[in-house]
Amino acid sequence: MCSLQIQFADQKQEFSKRPSKIGRRSLSRSISQSSTDSYSSAASYTDSSDDETSPRDKQQKNSKGNGDFCIKNIKQADFGRREIEIAEQEMPALMALRKRAQGEKPLAGAKVVGCTHITAQTAVLMETLSALGAQCRWAACNIYSTQNEVAAALAEGGFSVFAWKGESEDDFWWCIDRCVNVEGWQPNMILDDGGDLTHWIYKKYPNMFKKIKGIVEESVTGVHRLYQLSKAGKLCVPAMNVNDSVTKQKFDNLYCCRESILDGLKRTTDVMFGGKQVVVCGYGEVGKGCCAALKAMGSIVYVTEIDPICALQACMDGFRLVKLNEVIRQVDIVITCTGNKNVVVREHLDRMKNGCIVCNMGHSNTEIDVASLRTPELTWERVRSQVDHVIWPDGKRIVLLAEGRLLNLSCSTVPTFVLSITATTQALALIELYNAPEGRYKQDVYLLPKKMDEYVASLHLPTFDAHLTELTDEQAKYLGLNKNGPFKPNYYR
Amino acid sequence: MCSLQIQFADQKQEFSKRPSKIGRRSLSRSISQSSTDSYSSAASYTDSSDDETSPRDKQQKNSKGNGDFCIKNIKQADFGRREIEIAEQEMPALMALRKRAQGEKPLAGAKVVGCTHITAQTAVLMETLSALGAQCRWAACNIYSTQNEVAAALAEGGFSVFAWKGESEDDFWWCIDRCVNVEGWQPNMILDDGGDLTHWIYKKYPNMFKKIKGIVEESVTGVHRLYQLSKAGKLCVPAMNVNDSVTKQKFDNLYCCRESILDGLKRTTDVMFGGKQVVVCGYGEVGKGCCAALKAMGSIVYVTEIDPICALQACMDGFRLVKLNEVIRQVDIVITCTGNKNVVVREHLDRMKNGCIVCNMGHSNTEIDVASLRTPELTWERVRSQVDHVIWPDGKRIVLLAEGRLLNLSCSTVPTFVLSITATTQALALIELYNAPEGRYKQDVYLLPKKMDEYVASLHLPTFDAHLTELTDEQAKYLGLNKNGPFKPNYYR
Amino acid sequence: MCSLQIQFADQKQEFSKRPSKIGRRSLSRSISQSSTDSYSSAASYTDSSDDETSPRDKQQKNSKGNGDFCIKNIKQADFGRREIEIAEQEMPALMALRKRAQGEKPLAGAKVVGCTHITAQTAVLMETLSALGAQCRWAACNIYSTQNEVAAALAEGGFSVFAWKGESEDDFWWCIDRCVNVEGWQPNMILDDGGDLTHWIYKKYPNMFKKIKGIVEESVTGVHRLYQLSKAGKLCVPAMNVNDSVTKQKFDNLYCCRESILDGLKRTTDVMFGGKQVVVCGYGEVGKGCCAALKAMGSIVYVTEIDPICALQACMDGFRLVKLNEVIRQVDIVITCTGNKNVVVREHLDRMKNGCIVCNMGHSNTEIDVASLRTPELTWERVRSQVDHVIWPDGKRIVLLAEGRLLNLSCSTVPTFVLSITATTQALALIELYNAPEGRYKQDVYLLPKKMDEYVASLHLPTFDAHLTELTDEQAKYLGLNKNGPFKPNYYR
Amino acid sequence: MCSLQIQFADQKQEFSKRPSKIGRRSLSRSISQSSTDSYSSAASYTDSSDDETSPRDKQQKNSKGNGDFCIKNIKQADFGRREIEIAEQEMPALMALRKRAQGEKPLAGAKVVGCTHITAQTAVLMETLSALGAQCRWAACNIYSTQNEVAAALAEGGFSVFAWKGESEDDFWWCIDRCVNVEGWQPNMILDDGGDLTHWIYKKYPNMFKKIKGIVEESVTGVHRLYQLSKAGKLCVPAMNVNDSVTKQKFDNLYCCRESILDGLKRTTDVMFGGKQVVVCGYGEVGKGCCAALKAMGSIVYVTEIDPICALQACMDGFRLVKLNEVIRQVDIVITCTGNKNVVVREHLDRMKNGCIVCNMGHSNTEIDVASLRTPELTWERVRSQVDHVIWPDGKRIVLLAEGRLLNLSCSTVPTFVLSITATTQALALIELYNAPEGRYKQDVYLLPKKMDEYVASLHLPTFDAHLTELTDEQAKYLGLNKNGPFKPNYYR
Repeated sequence: MCSLQIQFADQKQEFSKRPSKIGRRSLSRSISQSSTDSYSSAASYTDSSDDETSPRDKQQKNSKGNGDFCIKNIKQADFGRREIEIAEQEMPALMALRKRAQGEKPLAGAKVVGCTHITAQTAVLMETLSALGAQCRWAACNIYSTQNEVAAALAEGGFSVFAWKGESEDDFWWCIDRCVNVEGWQPNMILDDGGDLTHWIYKKYPNMFKKIKGIVEESVTGVHRLYQLSKAGKLCVPAMNVNDSVTKQKFDNLYCCRESILDGLKRTTDVMFGGKQVVVCGYGEVGKGCCAALKAMGSIVYVTEIDPICALQACMDGFRLVKLNEVIRQVDIVITCTGNKNVVVREHLDRMKNGCIVCNMGHSNTEIDVASLRTPELTWERVRSQVDHVIWPDGKRIVLLAEGRLLNLSCSTVPTFVLSITATTQALALIELYNAPEGRYKQDVYLLPKKMDEYVASLHLPTFDAHLTELTDEQAKYLGLNKNGPFKPNYYR
Repeated sequence: MCSLQIQFADQKQEFSKRPSKIGRRSLSRSISQSSTDSYSSAASYTDSSDDETSPRDKQQKNSKGNGDFCIKNIKQADFGRREIEIAEQEMPALMALRKRAQGEKPLAGAKVVGCTHITAQTAVLMETLSALGAQCRWAACNIYSTQNEVAAALAEGGFSVFAWKGESEDDFWWCIDRCVNVEGWQPNMILDDGGDLTHWIYKKYPNMFKKIKGIVEESVTGVHRLYQLSKAGKLCVPAMNVNDSVTKQKFDNLYCCRESILDGLKRTTDVMFGGKQVVVCGYGEVGKGCCAALKAMGSIVYVTEIDPICALQACMDGFRLVKLNEVIRQVDIVITCTGNKNVVVREHLDRMKNGCIVCNMGHSNTEIDVASLRTPELTWERVRSQVDHVIWPDGKRIVLLAEGRLLNLSCSTVPTFVLSITATTQALALIELYNAPEGRYKQDVYLLPKKMDEYVASLHLPTFDAHLTELTDEQAKYLGLNKNGPFKPNYYR
Repeated sequence: MCSLQIQFADQKQEFSKRPSKIGRRSLSRSISQSSTDSYSSAASYTDSSDDETSPRDKQQKNSKGNGDFCIKNIKQADFGRREIEIAEQEMPALMALRKRAQGEKPLAGAKVVGCTHITAQTAVLMETLSALGAQCRWAACNIYSTQNEVAAALAEGGFSVFAWKGESEDDFWWCIDRCVNVEGWQPNMILDDGGDLTHWIYKKYPNMFKKIKGIVEESVTGVHRLYQLSKAGKLCVPAMNVNDSVTKQKFDNLYCCRESILDGLKRTTDVMFGGKQVVVCGYGEVGKGCCAALKAMGSIVYVTEIDPICALQACMDGFRLVKLNEVIRQVDIVITCTGNKNVVVREHLDRMKNGCIVCNMGHSNTEIDVASLRTPELTWERVRSQVDHVIWPDGKRIVLLAEGRLLNLSCSTVPTFVLSITATTQALALIELYNAPEGRYKQDVYLLPKKMDEYVASLHLPTFDAHLTELTDEQAKYLGLNKNGPFKPNYYR
Repeated sequence: MCSLQIQFADQKQEFSKRPSKIGRRSLSRSISQSSTDSYSSAASYTDSSDDETSPRDKQQKNSKGNGDFCIKNIKQADFGRREIEIAEQEMPALMALRKRAQGEKPLAGAKVVGCTHITAQTAVLMETLSALGAQCRWAACNIYSTQNEVAAALAEGGFSVFAWKGESEDDFWWCIDRCVNVEGWQPNMILDDGGDLTHWIYKKYPNMFKKIKGIVEESVTGVHRLYQLSKAGKLCVPAMNVNDSVTKQKFDNLYCCRESILDGLKRTTDVMFGGKQVVVCGYGEVGKGCCAALKAMGSIVYVTEIDPICALQACMDGFRLVKLNEVIRQVDIVITCTGNKNVVVREHLDRMKNGCIVCNMGHSNTEIDVASLRTPELTWERVRSQVDHVIWPDGKRIVLLAEGRLLNLSCSTVPTFVLSITATTQALALIELYNAPEGRYKQDVYLLPKKMDEYVASLHLPTFDAHLTELTDEQAKYLGLNKNGPFKPNYYR
């Protein structure tokens, strides 16, 4: 058993080294950047702005008299329920899981504390976990992303939810604390998105880890934190890196970005893609998706890369590989997809042509040095939601989207189908960790076993009316494979 | 000279034969369908709903004391001016025309009465016409599409504009009448979009045609009306069919729809395109654009066609050519692009699967038999602006977009660049007709001369930093072409 | 009736003005360029080189004792028959025509003299014409393109064929003459490809035109000649321009070149397309096909154009529009598709980089100034059939394909399906002209009526198992169309 | 040190279990299947058929009097040298390696015995190894693939080469033996392609492994054998699996097959791709390449898969996922890309439609059960090289390509650029293994270190005039990466 008390001091430093634009108070140092990213939620139809009272100051109960939750307005439950029902229709895999596990309840006895975006899709996940036998307490991983109606429906359904749209940072940590710090209940599973919940437990309730069987973490940021903990020998429980499962990666990055880059640019700028010159910085999965979509729409796309293998892929896929400086004067759109920092800096921005659109599809808000644009000689003009014109003294305008934060989170929506894949992966990871025999998983970070990744994929095939071929016995023998998979080595993408 | 008085009676019948869903009052019979289509205008930022007084009941003057206009609110002029300035940046061809014609004023003496969408882009056109020497009076061709701020800026700039967002039908005709029925001023050029203005003059002021040098008509509907008039021998002046110029066609249909089908579907439904099965009815330019875009995004696209040539093109472009019934049960999205009526009928709708999205990219609202869905056993649920769920007794939901009206007008925006091409074509057509020597044009409908079409295109090339090659003398001789064009036969597309 | 005798003198001049690289003897001046283009025929399996005797010096008879033909070797008939049978399988439209017309024999009485490539596909056409009632005599339109086995099978089947692979120019005209100059038989229909047959009759037997009902001409060159005749008022009979029918155009140019550019480049150079920089000169149908294919294979494609409309299309389709000089130093492949002359000249060739591939997909051999490479300081090295390395003094090599002649004729094969469309169009044009009532066609050049173009397309749809939708009566009325077409205006492409 | 003598008996069995169509003599049991695959070599211009004497019976010497080789004809050396020079131009990475290593000679002392295809590209590799300090002895890994001229040039250059086109099986092993069984020379490195050389040494000269520092193996087959040896604990030296390096994988499979599927089909059948219905069995890298290419050319592509992840990728990429039986009656082309056996069996072949083309892009000749077609009621007709018509009693013809062997090896050529990547990887693997400090590599099978994979890629970027971006110090620190890579985790593809 690792010594959590001692660990804590160092650990704080580790987290505080992470880049953050919010640094007013001590606690805020460790709020994950992703938790303050802006977030576009297409389904918030009801007006939440009428009531200015903080949810923390209200006492609400659901129709059964249960008050163990804290949300905006329990009266919005009906509306939220309809949203959940619509989401259910596009999350066939979770619904299938519910059915298949109806008898066995593989999560019987599981006490899951969760910290994710609270949306209709998450609600379908939570209700699935519940159907599989788990008890759940939940907070939001982002101060803007909660769909209040959905939170209401969950509270009405008996879930202990602590979240609302527009939390303050203090609210954010208060909600997380309410999830874990509860009399007579202690979580034995963590489902995290960004690592803030995990961080809080490490910091405040390290002893809780004695009973925790594992952590399931979805985000790049959270996974990064876990690997750091693991490297430092401070990870006390097995953790499942859901982020890097093949299926999730391809959907969250390649397939989803292929669509959301177009959507995000259109909704904000109505730009015509045909004939536009675009430079995409980074040719990983996100970059590949963006490039493919824009090329298909008739844009002329240039790529920058640091990795020669990705660079060669860009070449073979038909993109000129350039340094940003070579094309910065001529392009109409600049898109960052690197995960790196300061990829687009003031020097580049100074050289862009009038009307150039600048946006970020990569990580957080580090890729474009937006801070460098906050200088007196430049005028900012907010022309639409998420769209700023930054105007140079000579009249040149740069169109900056979402202030350099993630375009696809801020200015487009994520299809339910993509979220379904993530949620199913999370559910299976919980089941795996919760039921794994002693010793299968050590205090380390694991990828989802290939076979389960394949299972997630198979649950989504019916959506496409797709018919999988089965190996004959003879073929399975010839290939040296089990007929039920796994079919590929772990490194297969 | 044709006998306008006699013509009138027959003519009314002709117009009233055209399909129309609005038929309450006699006048309304001849309002063109397109004039009541819903219309999405991304740039209406200011709230126009605060003042319930009808503009017709208000007396407003601009800062120079001029009151010969009727708009929502002259105070919005500044805001509208900025919109116009932004549009100017993306309409380089009109700005170039202004410059080139600065000295000669090719429209000096022209009195243009116009009836088009009143948007920032139209304002750039009007101010260009004015810079070229024309006087303009303008009404809206659609009761929803006017950008009130832009109308205000135009009125402030001295234009006689009669239009606001949300006109009644009575308002609609009143505004048109105010444009033409004015003491001491008589139009000598008509710029029409839909044919309503032309119709009104035919009906009410046939003698005006004595002074009119020509009509420039943009829309399919209006052009159709003109050809009918011509066939019937009742067209009294030359008319220029701007709609069928190559450049406009390709941009309005192929290139624009290639982008707006994705945009319209995303904004309304957030649907993921990858893996979706889609049937596109019609493989003309619009259908070609839709199919190309969806295929590029990973959809599986089926096509229906009546024309064997277009059908063969669909085959060669990689689409299965089917009858609608063959795939109606399996598709996720149905898109009509035919210009035909009742392409999707209740029988099809009954057989679609749960969640199927149905929308129209073709003409007006005839393609989908929406009326057939207004039966008691079906429940309509408005889930977002422009999105209805139509629910069958067994719970099946069809997602109907824009109530079957044009998706790209209702649910996406048209890029300024596309409008720039149309507006430039209109301006050149006016110049051509106004300056044509006696006898060049008869009382007939003409296509823009190929060479002017090429000129419009050439004015838009700098936007793409595109460099045209020039023929050498030797090459021109070899090809038997003038070095300045036209370069292709008229039928070239 | 036009005065043919007088016409002749002028007419000769007209033809001799046309560019020609072969000018040794007087007669050769008027051989059409296309008739000496190299030609790749994949299906010549049997060795024709064993017998050096000229066919003109041999006396052969078919198995029925008929000797009215002149071919290489009648013994190859069986082999040729199999080729014809294989071709029949891919020419369903002609086979369908045979069946439909079995009773009526629409060409009964027709005496067709033809001058086309003599291949298995032509044989299917000839046997179809025969089945429809026509008598045929045939010569080759190209001295290299005859499939000797097929000619043998035709001769064996009773056709009077005069053609073999590797004719001399003298042979060429001798064969044509044998087709028309025959006792007791006079043609009443001409089917020409290149205009040489038509020219010969004009020159030698102008009186024949008295009985000729019409000319069907397939090639650009031949059509050009006909329009010149027409312009000069010297066309004595109606002529059908088959070349410009929509279906043929799209297939011969867009769809066929989309495939043959890849095929031709691979077969000659084994070049990898991915990442290659390519400049395509000309963005007509051929250029569009080439660009689409290369872009799809991962090449980076630049386009040059003289026509602003095509230039704008290139931009919107995602290609940088440049002048050739801007990119000539950096590209790996140069492809001409202009129909123009001297598009690539020595100055360009001097600036190309080592290993640059140069080829022509446009017209004849005028586009690349190959003659300019025949200078002493450059070394030519034939490295494969149709592939020359031209080596500069500094060691730089340019890879010149097919000596600048048509790549797709020389280095790839034309799919039977494409030829099926052309052949069906020719058959229908013959039927139309032969059966047209007096006065429908004047002494002019006509395009195939739209409806027949549509008919050709419809005959090819079953190949793709494509199901056409039929208009309802109500829809036809709404659209103002006949249910059986034509469905589009003539200018529709 | 492992006990090789004992190992041998078992080992033989292992190899003999592998599928093989050739089983006449005992030795032939262990010839690898790939060594007898047909092979298309575009560059064999000189006629090798004139001399029927077996090279084994000839005594030849090169111009320096050296006779330690056995090839077809030393007189072809000049021609082969030109081929090598042309290949050098497209293998810039090896040429760069030669230059960079000029001083240090990283392979000084290396004695490399090689068994690969002997082509111009291999010659560039061998001469590079030699320039880096190695001595080389070489045999062919395939009895058909040797370019005799190149072998002559190598022999003339002093290399001990034992290979000619059209070896018998006995010749095959004799040549291999001549490479290793030589007085006073013992190899210390093995470069193998297919595992036959390695197998021979295991079998005949196991003691040689005492001095061997490592094996570099390129092929799937050979790697499979090595893993089996490793699993059985019988691998005595470290082995480098070159086959699975990212760069090679993408090029050999995705990028190369994307082009060669089109090339192979065109060269053999001249089929038009537009509108064709195609089923591709398997959606790994090869399948992905085939599908992308055919879709781009206008084919309608169906996919079969056993792996749900690949299946989902196929769906998202826009392909209908089916079982083979669902579409077998309707498709025009069937392509196998599975690596599996009996994917297409007689039952499928019986149901295919007339004219259906069947070919294999996967492994060896197991995927299509060609043996099942060798029954009396079916007629085989060889219509071209590599093209058979198999004719059913009712006249139905199936077009079988390359008798079910690899289409891309048999019927198209592999671009030099692809071979350059493989050859560079091989060279680097040899350098790595030869110079690795004791203990870095155990008796196991290794993947090339990521960093060297990246190095291979970077050496090929100049070909595309591609400009890599370098990390700043700040960025490298932020990402936790070395500025020189590796940039991605090992599993990145």
